[in-house]
Amino acid sequence: MRFFRTVISPSNLRVLSRCRLFNASSPKPQESAATHVLRRNVPSMNVAVNREAFRQAVANTLERRLFYIPSFKIYRGVAGLYDYGPPGCAVKANVLAFWRQHFVLEENMLEVDCPCVTPEVVLKASGHVDKFTDLMVKDEKTGTCYRADHLLKDFCNEKLQNDLSMTADKAAELRHVLAVLDDLSAEELGARIKEYGITAPETKSPLSDPYPFNLMFQTSIGPSGLIPGYMRPETAQGIFVNFKDLYYYNGSKLPFGAAQIGQAFRNEISPRQGLLRVREFTLAEIEHFVDPEDKSHPKYSEVADLEFLMFPREEQTSGQSASTIQLGEAVSTGIVNNETLAYFIGRVYLFLTSLGIDKDRLRFRQHLANEMAHYAADCWDAEIECSYGWIECVGIADRSAYDLRAHSEKSGVDLVAHEKFSEPREVEKLVIATVKKELGLAFRGNQKMVVEALEAMDEKEALEMKATLESKGEAEFYVCLLGKNVTIKKNMVTISKEKKKEHQRVFTPSVIEPSFGIGRIIYCLFEHCFYTRPSKAGDEQLNVFAFPPLVAPIKCSVFPLIQDKKYDAVAKLISKSLTVAGISHKIDISGATIGKRYARTDELGIPFAITVDSTSSVTLRERDSKDQIRINVEEVVSVVKDITDGQSSWADAKGRFPAHSSVSADA
Amino acid sequence: MRFFRTVISPSNLRVLSRCRLFNASSPKPQESAATHVLRRNVPSMNVAVNREAFRQAVANTLERRLFYIPSFKIYRGVAGLYDYGPPGCAVKANVLAFWRQHFVLEENMLEVDCPCVTPEVVLKASGHVDKFTDLMVKDEKTGTCYRADHLLKDFCNEKLQNDLSMTADKAAELRHVLAVLDDLSAEELGARIKEYGITAPETKSPLSDPYPFNLMFQTSIGPSGLIPGYMRPETAQGIFVNFKDLYYYNGSKLPFGAAQIGQAFRNEISPRQGLLRVREFTLAEIEHFVDPEDKSHPKYSEVADLEFLMFPREEQTSGQSASTIQLGEAVSTGIVNNETLAYFIGRVYLFLTSLGIDKDRLRFRQHLANEMAHYAADCWDAEIECSYGWIECVGIADRSAYDLRAHSEKSGVDLVAHEKFSEPREVEKLVIATVKKELGLAFRGNQKMVVEALEAMDEKEALEMKATLESKGEAEFYVCLLGKNVTIKKNMVTISKEKKKEHQRVFTPSVIEPSFGIGRIIYCLFEHCFYTRPSKAGDEQLNVFAFPPLVAPIKCSVFPLIQDKKYDAVAKLISKSLTVAGISHKIDISGATIGKRYARTDELGIPFAITVDSTSSVTLRERDSKDQIRINVEEVVSVVKDITDGQSSWADAKGRFPAHSSVSADA
Repeated sequence: MRFFRTVISPSNLRVLSRCRLFNASSPKPQESAATHVLRRNVPSMNVAVNREAFRQAVANTLERRLFYIPSFKIYRGVAGLYDYGPPGCAVKANVLAFWRQHFVLEENMLEVDCPCVTPEVVLKASGHVDKFTDLMVKDEKTGTCYRADHLLKDFCNEKLQNDLSMTADKAAELRHVLAVLDDLSAEELGARIKEYGITAPETKSPLSDPYPFNLMFQTSIGPSGLIPGYMRPETAQGIFVNFKDLYYYNGSKLPFGAAQIGQAFRNEISPRQGLLRVREFTLAEIEHFVDPEDKSHPKYSEVADLEFLMFPREEQTSGQSASTIQLGEAVSTGIVNNETLAYFIGRVYLFLTSLGIDKDRLRFRQHLANEMAHYAADCWDAEIECSYGWIECVGIADRSAYDLRAHSEKSGVDLVAHEKFSEPREVEKLVIATVKKELGLAFRGNQKMVVEALEAMDEKEALEMKATLESKGEAEFYVCLLGKNVTIKKNMVTISKEKKKEHQRVFTPSVIEPSFGIGRIIYCLFEHCFYTRPSKAGDEQLNVFAFPPLVAPIKCSVFPLIQDKKYDAVAKLISKSLTVAGISHKIDISGATIGKRYARTDELGIPFAITVDSTSSVTLRERDSKDQIRINVEEVVSVVKDITDGQSSWADAKGRFPAHSSVSADA
Repeated sequence: MRFFRTVISPSNLRVLSRCRLFNASSPKPQESAATHVLRRNVPSMNVAVNREAFRQAVANTLERRLFYIPSFKIYRGVAGLYDYGPPGCAVKANVLAFWRQHFVLEENMLEVDCPCVTPEVVLKASGHVDKFTDLMVKDEKTGTCYRADHLLKDFCNEKLQNDLSMTADKAAELRHVLAVLDDLSAEELGARIKEYGITAPETKSPLSDPYPFNLMFQTSIGPSGLIPGYMRPETAQGIFVNFKDLYYYNGSKLPFGAAQIGQAFRNEISPRQGLLRVREFTLAEIEHFVDPEDKSHPKYSEVADLEFLMFPREEQTSGQSASTIQLGEAVSTGIVNNETLAYFIGRVYLFLTSLGIDKDRLRFRQHLANEMAHYAADCWDAEIECSYGWIECVGIADRSAYDLRAHSEKSGVDLVAHEKFSEPREVEKLVIATVKKELGLAFRGNQKMVVEALEAMDEKEALEMKATLESKGEAEFYVCLLGKNVTIKKNMVTISKEKKKEHQRVFTPSVIEPSFGIGRIIYCLFEHCFYTRPSKAGDEQLNVFAFPPLVAPIKCSVFPLIQDKKYDAVAKLISKSLTVAGISHKIDISGATIGKRYARTDELGIPFAITVDSTSSVTLRERDSKDQIRINVEEVVSVVKDITDGQSSWADAKGRFPAHSSVSADA
């Protein structure tokens, strides 16, 4: 019975599907070639460098220029915690400001800002307290903890790579283990670890059996110690619990989107992959509430013509690759479930590519049936390819009514929408009548929970159960609150459809949820924007971050060509005008050669440099082309402002102003 | 001995001075009259309403329009946790964006973004683990916890107000208790509670003795349970631990400012005062590092002429009121310690008044000697008057070298700056030679900590100890790491000054720290901007928030005058242009009268309304004056944009466009 199996599988609970979102994806069918990651349409990019070396070069530059810093470094740091230093912090602020403009302002979303400290009851309702876990093993001698799946994965990969004497059968077995790794139960993982004789990596001591470790940071609210709380693992719950107020604020009308930007926390067992798997991170989440019977979107036509890499379920299971599909076609052929989901997929594509994500290293991958929660209508991840592989950076899920229902049930407050009919309508209604006596006899103390779960079934579930009861006399039924299956017999419940007159329709809205891992997007952006080019003398490779002006941490640098009071005064004047215009910039009045100063600012990804080489006009240089034009002192700030605000482009500026004639001053 | 007493007093530790910053201030000398809070230069403000009623009116409006929402309301909430709903969230985003523009961009500060989860070692060094406490009492029957000082304060206030039979002596005693409340030790508080027979407010059960409760939310990092951590109680420590990298990033030059915006956490014992005392809040902090020998500021002259309410120490202790003082004069007469501190006081004044804080309800109060840490050079709080009294919203402290020294000591990493001399200089150096043998005999296992503390003394401390040792043969000495006093004898240490040749000066920078409680500023802003005015018919009072366009949550509303497809189309066109221009707005196409719709948007503080009453031109209405002008459809968006961006004003627009001739449509 497909339906009930799906309900039971823990991997289908919200928390695990969410949990998966912010995991680096496991190998997926048809990974593209490793070299792919390095393709970039910028000069002199050496495509032969391998992933590791490339990653190291990026990381060195990022850390040396303080894009990020391991947190609490002077105390030897804490794994999985990073600071954004000045340029990283500026990139993050720019990404978030653009997110607000692109999503919140554009769609008139209701943005909220809720606390990170969350009482247990909320996360109990959402399922996190019971299910937000990873499987852990302990070194039995030292007590050091490891993620069980990581150890098994490392073992398989190592064997496959280095054990030349392995049989083809054995190799196939290990490859199979890798493919199903995410779906293994604690017992299955434990059995493999025993069978393969896997021991603790450092001490070679034996390992404990795998057991679940809850990934939430636990704390206690108030002085009594009696109110358990957690640091929220996502921002979405803050929106769901406010649904009733937000719906009213929106004039009791659907659809509307609510949004939240904020910190989320995951107490990872053993963080790896640098900035991609961290213990505290910024999420930007949207919950777009819609009528489940009308998932059209008024602005759908604005994105329907977009074409980009999509990787539908079918193509994944049949071993094909992601391919370029027109979004409108994906909807009309039923690949994407509905217009609203498609609208957000399109908007996410525009968002990411505007930031500077390479469109050829961005794909939208549909969740496989076994990755998706039973209640979800459809789910797509925006995956970005970087040196770690394809990374899930945005999840876009149609989660149906699951979350609002869960909180309605637990809190006793109806989280529903109303549609008033102009005249009363005759409707066919599902009636689930439970037989309390029989249920009481069978389930005693658990009766109430079983009754509630039965009454909360949606039409599809109920009719499936009705059919099963009629054909087999009983049905297995998963009760969330009990965390287990129970057997429902025919005499315990009557399921029927009845006709009634109704004046309004009361329903739980569906929610379409685009959820953005901001730190992951930024890390991938760093890799996509990074390239090296030879110095003028050809004796060294210079690093460049090709950030678009929109996200560049600093928009412009200002250099007096030589140390001279007159030039310094002009530079200061320009700096002041830039500040008034709200343009972040950096003056460098050091005695370094102008070429050295260009190289320094290229490495920070500063798109424009103003060199003061006379008191009346200046040279404006663009980072990637290294082209230079001459502009009057009075005009230069407005030219830079127009380009960085997106009102104009470098090409426009080159058309308007004369090229700088002297040879390039680049180092 | 003043010096050693100061070191010992816990109220002089950083953590308590910081703790005090985000407390609502206790009654201070010369509170201004209660009615003061309601004075406002807006029409029809009823100045006779009392504080409580006024506060309730503001709170009702704020909660009804979702400026804020008690968090997790459907689960009956958690004391001290609030959500910002859509308009509150927008105000907060606007305040933070302006903070970045006004401080970070203007001063080229280095902004960082560090995690909230913080390992114990960092907060041990800062003193929070040992000293970030409030005194608590427990109801001995139910276990309910109360802040000891709150119970004593409530008792005294209640007696003074209601006990008419009280003697003058007794009244004077209770007033004295209120005045010294912040300085009472656990023993003193306990004695008073016993003496006055104070019991638990709800059950009248006896209370436990007061004992310290640490206000940090505790958690555990990683799966082992062996790394204790806390949710940071402030953002400043993230900056201090990064000093070395930031100094290098700044070209190894002083001065520079570093900044951080982020969440901070305080597990309050029993939160009161709504949005003013919460368990999670947003801080915006600046650490401006300077050479302790040169605290001048290059842009000081830009603020020196500002005049505003200041409340120096002298005036407080001699019973005078705050008075208008010119900032430059305050520096030249030595009231404000140095130019850099004064520069930030001036900038904070400009920041707050630009947001819409009433300058007559804003004062800068200098810390009294007993409020200030012994190492602090000077400290001023920006206090804003609201219905709760004068509230500390920004603290601006010259904290000298305390924080960097504490982390240097604990981490073993030198957090210092260097000044290279053009030629070697002969300098007199303090030499503190400890006699390990004697110290070992006296302190055994604690010897190392005593030695470190002795060696870390600054010149002033060391010379004072030298004098004491010479006159008395021994001196009391507080050792932070031990948390107690020890007796140092003459034979344990030799303190002398020696001459040496040096090529550079190595020193720990001083830090000047402006620290902003964003939620408190926003709450006070709500009160300062709120007023009521009678409806046109005079039958009801309408609420208005007079937010300046800079912080208004929504800049503009758009109404078709009547329900008509042509008008709707124009309204949608205008809405689209507003979105492209980045202007937040709200369309209201409901059938409500235009007056009702104006009233609704006034209550959200939306400064401008565009009413579409023809297809070629529209009416633009300003919120507070209710004046209306007529503008072409094509021009209206740029007019609104120029005003909300601060490029132009409503007065300019009124000069450029004809007044709308028909009678006001206001309700």
